[in-house]
Amino acid sequence: MTEEEKKVEAMETKEEAPAPAEVPAATEAPARARDDNVVFVGKKGAMGYVLAVVTQFNNGATEVSIKARGKLISRAVDVAEIVKNRFMPDVKVTDIAISTEELTSEDGSKSKVSAMEIILKK
Amino acid sequence: MTEEEKKVEAMETKEEAPAPAEVPAATEAPARARDDNVVFVGKKGAMGYVLAVVTQFNNGATEVSIKARGKLISRAVDVAEIVKNRFMPDVKVTDIAISTEELTSEDGSKSKVSAMEIILKK
Repeated sequence: MTEEEKKVEAMETKEEAPAPAEVPAATEAPARARDDNVVFVGKKGAMGYVLAVVTQFNNGATEVSIKARGKLISRAVDVAEIVKNRFMPDVKVTDIAISTEELTSEDGSKSKVSAMEIILKK
Repeated sequence: MTEEEKKVEAMETKEEAPAPAEVPAATEAPARARDDNVVFVGKKGAMGYVLAVVTQFNNGATEVSIKARGKLISRAVDVAEIVKNRFMPDVKVTDIAISTEELTSEDGSKSKVSAMEIILKK
């Protein structure tokens, strides 16, 4: 096991890999609800999401979608770049889409937030 | 800067520092050095950059490139979305590219940062 791998593993256990909360929110991506290979980028460190993407590819996915909203968009780009440059050089970014989503907060007020989806293909 | 942002920034620098040499630095957008209609998104509010983009279109540009790095990538997406949705509905996003750039800080240490370019066309 290389130093790199050890580091990733350490971060993984620290950050509890399952990442439960993010996935159910999967109601955007209208025409693209293909095969559930979606990683939602949230507030944890980028490496947790990198691991999620790599795991999906290793489990047989040929296409993984990385999604994020608002300030987390920049982290989604980090995730895609790290997967591609450090872990899976055969993976390509095949599509990037940006959009605006309307969120309703608890008090009923609405606000707009930018969203992004990055498609990676093996 | 909120507490959240500080924390996120701390995490990012912590995680990005180790990343060794993967990609030969800032070579994105090779075939794209067309006509200098580039808006670099920095730390000011999004509306300043929205105005810059709209001004370039109004001055005759048919294509404007919005560029940003690191955490400012999410602001670049906001700028593109606001231009498109609020000011110039005839403008389309024709291309989005992401890449990794290598920065050398004052003390000579290198770090990687994600970069993004969004092309808008009228």
